[in-house]
Formats: sequence, C-alpha cells, structure tokens
Amino acid sequence: MDRPGQPDRPREACGVMGVHGHPEAANIAYLGLYALQHRGQESAGICSRGGREGEQFVHRGMGLVSDVFGEQSIAKLRGRHAVGHVRYSTSGDSTLRNAQPFCANTDAGPVALAHNGNLVNAARVRDELEGRGAIFATTSDSEVIVHLLARSRQPTLEDRLVDALSRLKGAYSLVMQTRDALVAVRDPHGFRPLVLGQLDGAWVVASETCALDLIGAAVERHIAPGEMVVIRRGKLGALQPFPRADCGAFCIFEYIYFARPDSNLPGGNVYAFRKELGRRLAREHPAPADVVIPLLDSGNAAALGYAEELGVPYDTGIIRNHFVGRTFIEPAQTIRNFGVKIKHNAIPGVISGKRVVLVDDSIVRGTSIMKISNMLRAAGAREVHVRISAPPTTRPCHYGIDMPTRQELIAADLPVPEICASIGADSLGYLSLAGLRDAGGRGHCDACFSGEYPVPITADSSPPQISLLRESSAAAAAEG
Amino acid sequence: MDRPGQPDRPREACGVMGVHGHPEAANIAYLGLYALQHRGQESAGICSRGGREGEQFVHRGMGLVSDVFGEQSIAKLRGRHAVGHVRYSTSGDSTLRNAQPFCANTDAGPVALAHNGNLVNAARVRDELEGRGAIFATTSDSEVIVHLLARSRQPTLEDRLVDALSRLKGAYSLVMQTRDALVAVRDPHGFRPLVLGQLDGAWVVASETCALDLIGAAVERHIAPGEMVVIRRGKLGALQPFPRADCGAFCIFEYIYFARPDSNLPGGNVYAFRKELGRRLAREHPAPADVVIPLLDSGNAAALGYAEELGVPYDTGIIRNHFVGRTFIEPAQTIRNFGVKIKHNAIPGVISGKRVVLVDDSIVRGTSIMKISNMLRAAGAREVHVRISAPPTTRPCHYGIDMPTRQELIAADLPVPEICASIGADSLGYLSLAGLRDAGGRGHCDACFSGEYPVPITADSSPPQISLLRESSAAAAAEG
Amino acid sequence: MDRPGQPDRPREACGVMGVHGHPEAANIAYLGLYALQHRGQESAGICSRGGREGEQFVHRGMGLVSDVFGEQSIAKLRGRHAVGHVRYSTSGDSTLRNAQPFCANTDAGPVALAHNGNLVNAARVRDELEGRGAIFATTSDSEVIVHLLARSRQPTLEDRLVDALSRLKGAYSLVMQTRDALVAVRDPHGFRPLVLGQLDGAWVVASETCALDLIGAAVERHIAPGEMVVIRRGKLGALQPFPRADCGAFCIFEYIYFARPDSNLPGGNVYAFRKELGRRLAREHPAPADVVIPLLDSGNAAALGYAEELGVPYDTGIIRNHFVGRTFIEPAQTIRNFGVKIKHNAIPGVISGKRVVLVDDSIVRGTSIMKISNMLRAAGAREVHVRISAPPTTRPCHYGIDMPTRQELIAADLPVPEICASIGADSLGYLSLAGLRDAGGRGHCDACFSGEYPVPITADSSPPQISLLRESSAAAAAEG
Amino acid sequence: MDRPGQPDRPREACGVMGVHGHPEAANIAYLGLYALQHRGQESAGICSRGGREGEQFVHRGMGLVSDVFGEQSIAKLRGRHAVGHVRYSTSGDSTLRNAQPFCANTDAGPVALAHNGNLVNAARVRDELEGRGAIFATTSDSEVIVHLLARSRQPTLEDRLVDALSRLKGAYSLVMQTRDALVAVRDPHGFRPLVLGQLDGAWVVASETCALDLIGAAVERHIAPGEMVVIRRGKLGALQPFPRADCGAFCIFEYIYFARPDSNLPGGNVYAFRKELGRRLAREHPAPADVVIPLLDSGNAAALGYAEELGVPYDTGIIRNHFVGRTFIEPAQTIRNFGVKIKHNAIPGVISGKRVVLVDDSIVRGTSIMKISNMLRAAGAREVHVRISAPPTTRPCHYGIDMPTRQELIAADLPVPEICASIGADSLGYLSLAGLRDAGGRGHCDACFSGEYPVPITADSSPPQISLLRESSAAAAAEG
Repeated sequence: MDRPGQPDRPREACGVMGVHGHPEAANIAYLGLYALQHRGQESAGICSRGGREGEQFVHRGMGLVSDVFGEQSIAKLRGRHAVGHVRYSTSGDSTLRNAQPFCANTDAGPVALAHNGNLVNAARVRDELEGRGAIFATTSDSEVIVHLLARSRQPTLEDRLVDALSRLKGAYSLVMQTRDALVAVRDPHGFRPLVLGQLDGAWVVASETCALDLIGAAVERHIAPGEMVVIRRGKLGALQPFPRADCGAFCIFEYIYFARPDSNLPGGNVYAFRKELGRRLAREHPAPADVVIPLLDSGNAAALGYAEELGVPYDTGIIRNHFVGRTFIEPAQTIRNFGVKIKHNAIPGVISGKRVVLVDDSIVRGTSIMKISNMLRAAGAREVHVRISAPPTTRPCHYGIDMPTRQELIAADLPVPEICASIGADSLGYLSLAGLRDAGGRGHCDACFSGEYPVPITADSSPPQISLLRESSAAAAAEG
Repeated sequence: MDRPGQPDRPREACGVMGVHGHPEAANIAYLGLYALQHRGQESAGICSRGGREGEQFVHRGMGLVSDVFGEQSIAKLRGRHAVGHVRYSTSGDSTLRNAQPFCANTDAGPVALAHNGNLVNAARVRDELEGRGAIFATTSDSEVIVHLLARSRQPTLEDRLVDALSRLKGAYSLVMQTRDALVAVRDPHGFRPLVLGQLDGAWVVASETCALDLIGAAVERHIAPGEMVVIRRGKLGALQPFPRADCGAFCIFEYIYFARPDSNLPGGNVYAFRKELGRRLAREHPAPADVVIPLLDSGNAAALGYAEELGVPYDTGIIRNHFVGRTFIEPAQTIRNFGVKIKHNAIPGVISGKRVVLVDDSIVRGTSIMKISNMLRAAGAREVHVRISAPPTTRPCHYGIDMPTRQELIAADLPVPEICASIGADSLGYLSLAGLRDAGGRGHCDACFSGEYPVPITADSSPPQISLLRESSAAAAAEG
Repeated sequence: MDRPGQPDRPREACGVMGVHGHPEAANIAYLGLYALQHRGQESAGICSRGGREGEQFVHRGMGLVSDVFGEQSIAKLRGRHAVGHVRYSTSGDSTLRNAQPFCANTDAGPVALAHNGNLVNAARVRDELEGRGAIFATTSDSEVIVHLLARSRQPTLEDRLVDALSRLKGAYSLVMQTRDALVAVRDPHGFRPLVLGQLDGAWVVASETCALDLIGAAVERHIAPGEMVVIRRGKLGALQPFPRADCGAFCIFEYIYFARPDSNLPGGNVYAFRKELGRRLAREHPAPADVVIPLLDSGNAAALGYAEELGVPYDTGIIRNHFVGRTFIEPAQTIRNFGVKIKHNAIPGVISGKRVVLVDDSIVRGTSIMKISNMLRAAGAREVHVRISAPPTTRPCHYGIDMPTRQELIAADLPVPEICASIGADSLGYLSLAGLRDAGGRGHCDACFSGEYPVPITADSSPPQISLLRESSAAAAAEG
Repeated sequence: MDRPGQPDRPREACGVMGVHGHPEAANIAYLGLYALQHRGQESAGICSRGGREGEQFVHRGMGLVSDVFGEQSIAKLRGRHAVGHVRYSTSGDSTLRNAQPFCANTDAGPVALAHNGNLVNAARVRDELEGRGAIFATTSDSEVIVHLLARSRQPTLEDRLVDALSRLKGAYSLVMQTRDALVAVRDPHGFRPLVLGQLDGAWVVASETCALDLIGAAVERHIAPGEMVVIRRGKLGALQPFPRADCGAFCIFEYIYFARPDSNLPGGNVYAFRKELGRRLAREHPAPADVVIPLLDSGNAAALGYAEELGVPYDTGIIRNHFVGRTFIEPAQTIRNFGVKIKHNAIPGVISGKRVVLVDDSIVRGTSIMKISNMLRAAGAREVHVRISAPPTTRPCHYGIDMPTRQELIAADLPVPEICASIGADSLGYLSLAGLRDAGGRGHCDACFSGEYPVPITADSSPPQISLLRESSAAAAAEG
C-alpha cells in the first residue's frame, strides 16, 4: 500500500467502481476511487450518466484522485449512475488519452467502460481491427473492448460485450455503463477481484471491499469468474455467459501484496492471510532471534505472524517517513544508502546488540533490502535474518500487474544462497510455494512464482507495442 | 485580425501548415502557425515525422501558439516533416480532444491530418460509420475523414484520401502526412485558401501567404480547387482527382474579414481588395463629411479607400487598447458603453464639431457600432455616418466560418433604415452585392450575403450534434 | 502602446489609480489599471480599504491586469476605497515582492502606497535607513517612502508624507491610502502625470485620463507640480507643500511615446501633439515621396501629420501581427529579418516601385528599423526615407523611464549620417530639439534628448544596487 | 507523524536546518528539511550563501519540501552555506510572505534567519518597534528578531542577536546565517530541540537527529539551553550568553507526539520513551483485554509497550489509508463516521468478539476517537477500552505548538468519566502526570497537561493579532 517512491517494487494495476441509482452517484464513485487509490496512482476518471436527457458527463485527469477531482468537477458529473477508474499503466503509455473510463458512442447507444486487468491477445486483435479500419485513440489494450463492442452486430450492449469478450483472452474485471444499465463482468479465470454491494437502495460495484466500507455500503457478494451482472432500473440480473474456467486463477499477488489489508477477497481477509503466511514462514524458516521487525508497512502482518508463531518479541525497528514525494534531488556527493534512507530509518535502541529478523513480502532487485540490512547493522544489529512471506518472484505477470522485467528480478537468476550473500544477510528464507498454496493459496494464479500460466502466453502476448506515435510529455493536469 | 474580446464578430475557422524535407520542420511549422494565429485561437498542434524510425511525434494544446509551444515541446518534435493546425471550433466542442492534427494508425501506415473547412454531410457520414462500428474520439467533423481513410480498401493513403473525400461534401483545405509523403488538397469549389511554397529546398504548404512570408519561403502557387498535391522524397506531383466545380466558390469573407491584409489570396492582395471596397463604397454611398475614421483595425483599409475616393481627410478618431484580455470583471453599477470602451476610446480633438464617417467591414448584432456611435457623439461629433464595406450579412456560413446565428444577425431581420435607426447613426450605407462582385468578388462564395450556397445544404447539414457526451471544462493547458 | 515583444524600445514605467468613496472601489480601480496597462505589464496590484472595521485588503500578482485579477480576487477586495498600481520595473528586481501597492502598519495607522516615478537619491536614503535599523522587504526604490513615513514623528500620515518627500529627490506621482483618506501628490517638477476625476460622487485619481474615460469618470483637473490633494470623507482639500519648481519638467517622452494617444496630458491631447510633430517633421525634413507609411502603431499619428503637411498619400504599407507573444522559438537556421517579421510584414502593392517615407517615433539600437528598411526594399520600394518624430535619443532617463543604456542607444555614439548608413535608408531625418520645443514641448523635461536634467544627477543617482540577495525565479502567478 | 487530514490533532510548529562549509550546502539543507517535514507542511525555504561574492540566494514556497524545491531551484541556491526552514504557522497568517528563512540587509551585513518556537512578548515588542518606525513585511512573530537585529548598535551580528534575544521571552531554537558565520542558539529554557552534527568536515545544525541520519551526518551533541554556537570558517565556538534557566523546560510534547520516533532528543530516543509510556499506562490502567491495538501510527509505540507489559497480544486492528489528501468532497447524504473512515478502517477478523484495548497518544475534541470506537464495535468488538499514553490535555501551548483552543479540548471541560461516556468507550484511562514525569519527563515543560508555564504568560502573550491587512488567498505556489 505504500508504493510511491519505491521504484523497485511491483506497481499496481487498476481499480474500478460502478454506481447505479444513487442521487450522488459521482460523489460515491469518487470516494470509492479514493479507497482504491493504492491500485493506481497515474490517472483517475469518472463518467456519470443522467441529467434530463440521459447524457454522459466525464472528467479524467493525471494524478491522484484528490488532485484530479474538486468540488466543481464533481458537481458537473450529474446523474444517478457512474463508473470510475484509477490507473497504473500496465500496458500503453502514460498519457491523459489513456485515462479511463473510455466513453464512446455506438449505434447501440453511448457507453462508458472501466477495465482492470490485462488482455493477452490485445495486440493481435488491435492489429486486425486496424486492418479493418478501426481508429484507436489511445495506446491502452482496454480500447480493443470498445471497438469490438462497436462492431458487434448484437442488438444490445450486454450482448455485444459478451460477443467482444469472447474474442479476448486474459484478465478483466470490468464495469460498463450503457444508456440504461450498469454491467459488471469478470473473466472466466477470475484473475482480478470485483465485488458487489448495496448502499441506500443503490447498487455499487468495486474492485475491493475497502471501497464499499468507506462509502458505508453493505457487501453483497463477489462476482463469480465468468459471471456478468446487469443492473437495470434498480433490478439486478446475473448471467454466466462464460463458463467458469476449470482452474480458478485469482491472483495470489493480490493477497500477498496488492490489495489493502482491510479488504476481503473471495478467499478471505487479506490481513489475516498475510499473518498466516508469516506463521508458516516461521515454521519453515525459524531464526534464532531476539526481535522480529517488519519492513513497514509491507511486512507488517507477516512479521506479526512470524513473531507470534515463534514467541519472539515483535517490535518496530525501522520507522517510515510518511512525507515521501515522487522525486528527490540527490547530491552529487552520494549519501550512503541514500534511496532507502529517504523513506526508512532504524531505531538503534530496538536493534542494537540483537539478532534481528527482518520480514517483508517480496524482494525485487534486492537493492533496497541490502541497504536496509546495512542500516540495521550500522544500528548495531548482531545478526540480520531476512524472511520473505512469499516464494521467490521469478516470472513476469501477463494479467495486469506491472512487474519488473525478468532482468530486474534478482530471483530469476540467482539461487537463494547467492541472493542472501548479495543482500548481506546472515540468512534468508522464502516461504515455499507449497507453503503458500497450503495457506489457502491453492486454486490461484501463482505464475509469477511457479511459471504456471493459467492462460497460455504466446509470442504476441507481450504488452502491445501499439503505436509509432510518441506524445510529448507536456503537463496535462486534467482534461474534462 | 483583432477578434479576441469582440464577441459579436464572426470568429475564425482554422489554419493549416505542412512542411516536407526541412531539418527544422517543427520549428518552421510553429512559426507558420504563429502567422496564422488570426485563423484560430482555441487550440494549436503540430505532428512531426522522422527520427530514426520514421516515428510521428505530436504536441497539441489549448490556447495560443505561443502558449502551447515552448522550447522543450518543439525540441521533442523531431524529424524533417511536419503538419500543424490552429483551430477555432466551427463544429464540435471546445476541448483538447478536438485539437488537431489528428494522428492515427491505419493498416496503410500512420497518418496525421489537419483540416480547414466544414463538411456539410459530416453528421450523416458519422452516423453511418458509427452504425458500422467506428468509435469517434472527438466531436469534430474532421474526424470522419480519418475514419474513411482507415476503412478505405485502396492501397495507398493518397488513394484512400481521394476515396474518403469523394464521400464528403463541403469545404476542405487539408494537409495529410503519411509515412513518406505530404499531401495537400482543396475541395472542388475551393472554398478555403491553400498555398504552396519553397524554403531552402523544402516544400511548405500553408493556409495563407503571410505564413510563407514569415518563414522566408517563396510563394510557388495557390493549390487549385479539386487539386491534390503529393510531395514524396522532395518530388512534387500534382493530380486533379476531383473536377473543378463549374463555379468557383472561394470564400469572399476571407477577403473582407478573415485573411490577414498582407496575405495574397488567389484573387490578389487582401489589403488592396479591402481598399477598393472602400473606394466603391464611397461611390455608392458618399457622405457629406469632414473626416473619415476607421473602426480600428477592421475598417482600416476600407476607410483609407473611402477617404481617398472622396478626397476627405482620413484620421484616427478612435484608438484601440491593445492589452485586451478575454474577460473583464464589470462592476454591478454598469458603466455607459462599457463593452466597447474596454477596447476603444474616442479622441475628441479629431471628431469634435465634425461630420464623421465611420467605416467598418461588417455589422453583426449592431450593439457595438451603436455604442461606438454614442461614443463619437459624446466626443462632439456633429453627424455620424456609418459605412460598411460589404453587403448586409444575412445568412449563416456552412463552409467553415463560425458566424453568428440568424437570430443574432441584425441584418437578417431589419431593413437598412431600421438598422440605421437602431444604431443611432445619421446615415448608414452598405456596399451593394453588385459592387462587391464588381470589385473582383465575382466567382466567389458570397452565400452569407446572397443566400446562394454553392454546395446544397440539406436538413442534415447543420453542424453535427454529435454526442451526448459532455466533457467538463477542467483546465487542460496542453497534452502531448 | 505596443511594446511587448519589442525588446529594443523603451519600456514603460508605472501607472497608479486611487478611488475614494465608491461602492465598487476595487472594481473601478481594476478597470482603471486595465486602461493604464500600457504603463507597466510586469505586475499589478490593488489594496482596498473598508469592510466593517476599516481593514485593508490586498491582491498583487505578476503579469497583466487581466491575468492577476479574477472575479474572486476582486470580490475579496472589499470596501469603498482603493489604490492600484501597474508596474514595469525601472529600479529593483522583477519579483512579486516588488509588486505595489506597498501596504504597511505605522503607529499612525495602516497605509497603502502606489508610486510612479524614480527617486534619484533613493539608494543613499536607503543606506542611511538601513544604518538606522530599517529592514527593507523589497528591492524597489519606492519602499524608502514607506520607511520615511513610518519613522516620521509628524502626527498625521499626510504630514508624514510631506516630511518623507522633503527628503527625497526625483520623480513621483503617488497615491496613498490611509485609515480615512486618499492622498495624491506630484513632485515639484511634475515629471509624471496625475489627474483627478469624479465618478458618481466618488473621487478618482489616475495616471492618465484614458483611465477616467474607461470608467466613465469626469476629468476634474491635473494635479499640479508640488501639489498634494487630500480627500477625506468625500471632501477634497488641496495643499501646496512643495513650491512648484521654477522650470516645469513634465516628461516630454510621455507625449512622444508613453502615454496612450487618447489621453490628455497637462499640455493637451497626446494624439494631436504627435500629429503636430509629424507636421513639423515634414517641414524640417521633407522627402520626395510617393507614399508615407507609419511603423504601426508607434508612428501612426506622426505619419498622418507628415503626409497631410506634404500632401503626399498616407497608406498602410506594413501591417502588424497582433498575436505576438513574449517569446518565439527561432530555428537554428536563421530566417532573414526574423525578429521584425514576427510582428511586421510589408504589403508590396502599397510600396512597390515607390519612394517610401517611413515614419516612427524613435530609434533605439537601429536593428529593427534596418530590418524594416530591408523588408521595404524587398517589397519593391524604390527609395526608403526614414523620418523620426523626435530628436535623437542620446541620454538615459533618471526619472522613471526604463531607457536602454547609452551603449544601446545608437544615437549616443553615431552622427545622423552614419545612423542613416547603418540602417540602410536613403535619407534619415529627426525632428530638431527646437522643433520639438516649439511644438509645445517647451518647459518640459527633455533630458533624454538634450542632456539638461532638471534634478541634478549625482554619483549615487544610479538605480540603487540595493541588495546582494538574489531571489530565484520560481513562477509566482499571484500572491494575496 | 501522520497529521495531514487529521484536523483535530495538534499540528506541528517548525523545523530548522543550517549547513556550514559543504560544497552542496543547499542540497543537504533540502534533504534535512525533507526529514523534518513532519514539523511543518505549510511552507518551506532555503537561503544559501556563497558564490563569488558571498551573495545570498533564496527560494521559498508554499507546500511540501518536495513541491517547493526542484532541480532548478536547488541549482540556483549556490554556495557552501545554507539555512532552511519548514513551517506550520503557530502565529501569523498562512501566506508566502511568512515563509522563512527571513532574509534582510542590515548595516552589519546581510542576514538570514530561521526560527522554531513562539515568542510570548512578540506582540508588545512589535507594537513598540512600529511605534519607532519599523515596517513589518510579514505577520509572523519571528520578524521581530530581524528588526531587533537591525536596530541593535552592537558591532557584530552575533552580538546583535544576543542583544535582540535578551529583549524577547519564550521559545526559540534558531539558526542565523551572516556574511561569514552560521549561528545556532536555543532559549534559556530549551523549549525546542536543536542538534549539532558533522558531515564530511562540514557543520550541520538541525531540529532533530533524524535529519542528520538522512544526510549521513554524525550527531555531535545537543545545543544546550541558553547556548549560542558560532561557526566561522569551519571553526566552532560555543558561548553561553544566557544563563540556563533554573528549571529545564524541554517540551514534553515533542516526546509524546511531535518528534519523529527515530529521533533522539536530549533525554533519549523518542520511540523508546513512547513505549515506556505504554508500559506505565498498562500498570496504571490495565484492562481485561484479548487484544491491544494502536491507532496507527500515533499510538504504535505505546500500544506495543502496553501489550508487552500486560502480556496481551498486540495486533493491527485498524489499518490506515496512506493516500489521504488534504480535502474530500463529502456527499450531501452523510456517510456514517465519514471523517475517520477516509483514513482508517477496521479489520473485523482481528477484533470480532474480542475485548479490545485501543491505544493512542492524545484526545483532542474526542470526535475521532468516538468514531473509531463506533467502528470497532461495528466490526464486532465486545468491549472497547481506550488508553491514552499521556495525561489529559487541558491547556494551550504558548511556546510554539499549534494546539487547539481550550474550547476545542474536551479534557479542558469534562472529567474523565464523562469523556469516556461521550466517546462511547467501556473504559478510558489516561497516563497520570506523575507517571509521565517518572517515565523521564521530569524537568520538562508539561504546561499543556499541568498548567505550570515555565515562562509567565501575560495578557499580551496571546498570538499576536498583528495586522489589519488581510491578504487574499490567491494561489502562490512558490516565490523566488
């Protein structure tokens, strides 16, 4: 949840919101996006529908939800229905044009679409559509859905959406707003979360339950893999246009890293799961320790679980500076462990003379954890034992998480002992894949650890290299 | 040329630039747009092509050329080829998305397009394209050209452009940039200007000669109605894919009002034409005057011609404040003749005790000229005779000029004597339609005066009411 | 009046406004500043007084009046009294801190001050005040007045102002707002203008009459040199605290160049004066010409006078682009006569084959006029005769006009024939000093032409090099 | 450390930095301010000194350090010496003019000053200075120091600073930069921290050790109460111009709330102190609990201490949203517990069916803790016992902490049982004043708890109501 300024960690994908039938639909969507901000900080947008003539109103901008929206822009988003989106580009460039929701006119009426996930065959479908005369306005893979919607000859937009999605492979949890309905759908594997709730008689759809909690909505249920929910004039209908895939493939990384700890995913509460991983990690890799400390805030829950399991004291040996901006002007004369110091500082009194277990949820390049390890020793730690509450990350994600490339993943190349040496730890232990699966992670997509990709990845599955067009980076605060 | 802050005058349409084969193509395009700024102040954009892999680079923004472009954005527009655009919306909303050039990928390669003019059947074609699955990213009528280009099955983009334009009716002077060529084309009636020039071995296309003058390019010739010029690898080919219409229909309003006085249009120099109108106006409507004064700067040339013809002194009786911004905060307690005073002030010494002839090029609502007339009387004018160097404007333009609506045109409803009374003048004289045509305006489109529209206007010719989508007006300085 | 983007012309100084007893005082001051914008484009500010407790409210910002003020900022400037200022730095750096009016608390109450002019002994007084513990917040010479006000032991702020000004030498036309009065005062030589008017029972003070015209105020009279006007509770009192200097020294450059042509200065209307200079110029330096053209807009009036006097046709041979921004990105491959072309373009039809007289009001470095001359020849002029409606500018101004330095003034070093050669003209004629004085310029300060400085300039009169502090140039749109 | 968006908690005061003799002085100061950001988020500024002629360079702006400074502004701050400041207004308005460091010229040379603390007799001294002609440019109480410096007749700026401070009462930890020295001084009671360090041969002064940690400087020692340190040409001299007050008065609130947990204050490490408070709190107010949870992050350390002392499990029952902006657009139809939900959410799995102890460091109005308590019960808590690791806050701070007013402090009016009822807790326990003092808080200023003010507060000690001037709130991002 604390990724800005932490360049060597996976970044988020996207978050979506849908509101149907609430007098303050846009405001509710805005608050929901606020709670989903951890899922994407690059751009935010809301498209509402209503007013006297069922018009759509849209406001999108680059940056955080709180920067993009103000009282005026919310007020202009009239109507009782809305869809919203926060984005961190997993494919496509980072420009205002790519900000979602996408809004378009089709001969079946106006449509607005917000998508979380990554389509593995988007590049090929896009090529084919361009070959048939489609003009793409963005470099985002999500735009293919809009074009397929527009070209489908099915009568209704719901039917067209089924038609479109049947052509696409990969991960999608999406919400669609039509002239008279809100549609929410998850791919057959159910890679990404999508949850349904109710608020004052209105229906709400969100990526995570934490968004429902903030707006005071009651959680109804998770939308099932392959399920499509259609809400029209306050009535909810549920379809199963796509058969649920044999193997469930909910993203295990949502539990380990992505989702907010207070969210409940289909398999249960995130915080509880993380704590359980810590307990299993302790059983798999106990360490002769005087104190267990988390790397705040990502290692928090697992460290508590680890400490409880071993009966070793848990303490806060490293504190975090919460005022971390996106960039720092580093002096030419480099400061030791600079990058990590901007954000973290050790408390010697907690650490000095002790055998310290440091718990985190992942190692990417290994640079940060090495600097933290140095910092702990400089603060007097006698031993530093690093424990990671997940297996080594060795593969990229093709379903919507912006992972570092293989070259950047230290575990893709080095065996654990060499990683341990390179980060300067006295010992290093990763939770085993079996341990992860036993903890409740069975039936999930754990391809980034196991290499077992539920949806086959072919040559053209790489993030689409769509356009020769390079848009220059002029500051575009917001577009409306 | 001085229209900002003058709300009851016609506003400009668009200006286009094309550069082929110059090492500083984007910078040349930028300067050309600078000179064409009077044709559109809403947005500006340039798309260059080149670099190592023939990529396209684009930068567009809302506002004046000098606000949209800076050193950095120009530097990013690499390559030896460029097309540029300044825009005043004649159709479509005023948002960044509508800023041109339009850039797109087609299966015949990338394309960038800049359009000046208005297509009378755009709305119908757009409906039809949407019915066949096209997704429009803007509300501009020009986007239909891009979609037709993409859907054409002709092999080359030039052929496709011919294909596309053969489906469209109305006014277009446009430049298109493809992977290896610059294409410039005018509609068969030749409504809008487009001129070809050369600079240091490079080819340049611009809406007006004043753009060529600024960059030091030599004027080659005007592109003919229905002609298409294709420049590829430095070689120029000229085609006539569309037969020139029987009647030429170059817009007479370009001469009277739009174009910069230093520009040479197909029929000759603008300033000279305006002065000639003044001379004819003097012969048609002489006034017993002591002094002839222009309404700066729009009546300048005609006033000089009028004064010369009658042998009456020309003088500057009204001066202009050149620091006029877009908005003023008017006090609640209204100031007499406020609107016009922000911009104009009389010089009593020139006017007092005199019979004054006030010359301008048009009357729209009549409010401004009435206030000016009051101001002249307050400054001591004995008589105020208003002379207009064009016939009464009674009809809207369907070919790309953002005219006031019929309801706003005082001459659409009132005969001249009543207009005279309503503006408080001692006499009022308009140049006759015959006089205008004799002055060299024969063979032009003068539909706004005569009602004789060269391209038939059908029910669906009204500016396309394209979208129910309303984008809110968040400030978007530039997008790149 | 058209100086932005014209780097080699003198720039303006400052304009001031005062309003006493009007329900919309700030709005009136704002409009007045609007009309005075030509006197300073660097910063603008208004300080109003009123509300329930006689508070002062202030809003200042960098840039044009229309950029600095909006509806909200005007609304916050409550009260029935206001003073305003537009500034072009003649001394002091260009930062927000220097924006006027200055507002301060003294033990005689709050005070706000707006100053036009330059104090020749400011640096010495400032040194002395700093030696006695004064802390200066700005680098402007005007701040010394505030400190002297604060340190004076006179009982009232009017008395203190007299006390302060008696210590200062140079040029000042200033307005001061106290707890209950508006005070306006001119230095004994009366270098800068200051005029008194009435509007709906309120009193208004402004630098030029054009400000009164815009707001619809009646001109009462010019404030006399050495006079102080005190307006309290609607009553006006006039004092003469400083004896009027033996020689009047109103700045002749205000007539020739600075003031708006529609303004009436103490000696009469500006436009009429300029035209008379043109007539005298014609008599002193007739030219065998076919056409007389002005360099728009600065040479306008003089060119008309010149043409009338000789009976030669006046015409517009050079037009101006009114959309000129502050900066241009020039290509590396330089364009011929680039600088001047951005703003001016010749109309060959007016010039070709003719003997042309080009009239302007001054030559500074000579670069622009040389380029214009080239441009005229390229447009076919047979001969180019340059006529300047003022004597050669050879000296700097110490009283508030931001003149180029001696090194930049071509006439400071070269005799007229050499200037003529260097600008490439066939002949060059300047109005003589005697001619200028006969035209009505007697009893004025013409030191920039004659070197006769009415107030002695000593070693310390140079613009004060006040501070070692350099403020970095972060963009500060406005401060309030 | 996490105060933005938490309106009912005390806000920070200020942080100061000084660097002497480092080639990248401004960059070092910038990073130090980064680490001190928790002490003030309203404005930031740095004044450097050096360059060829010993000039001062300054850059100040509104907002966070990361927003105010960029590569360019840092690059402009040349020289080997610098002072810096982050500010949260404890007195004076919130405008750019009040941003520190203050820079001024005196007849003893240029000076820059950064001040943390509040002067209790500033208003009176200011009145007196204004009576003697001083002009104040800001509404900050710190400016009186500058004026006293400028008016002192002592020869050097150090002597003048002693002279100035001897006139002032209250809290000050300040750094002053002169033409050739860096001076750091603390008031005789030593209310605010100030620590001395070394980095690569340069001297560094900072409000807290965490700033030294980030830049990799070694901590030398805390500057003593009443001590003045003068660093000139790399040499450090220590003086004791003011006798240390009989009673030490270091602010206990720095330990409890203000300082970063990783900082070491004169009495020891902050985190360790907070944990000890939790342990004592457990002994004074044990609760029959199943789980102890902190209100993140303010109650973190105390909750761990409390849990350890009682042997009850510590867990994270409430999580924090780290993407909290300054404002939220709340729907008209209010959401239950809205304010607190934006930032906090409960994890039912941790809480449900349990007797929960919630630990925090203070209660101000009681509104937030009431909403948190409701949230815990809604999440299934069987009992909610609130424990506060400090005594009830009943009095305002006069020495530099921006406390809520008495009316806003719930404990100022209500006895503990009534507070308990009003916040809906099953029990409420505050640490006793004796407990706090025993924990190491003896010899500190604990006036906000005890009412024992070390420096007497007289009628004029209230935050100075300095000026009738109201500056309007135009956005001023930065000034340079």
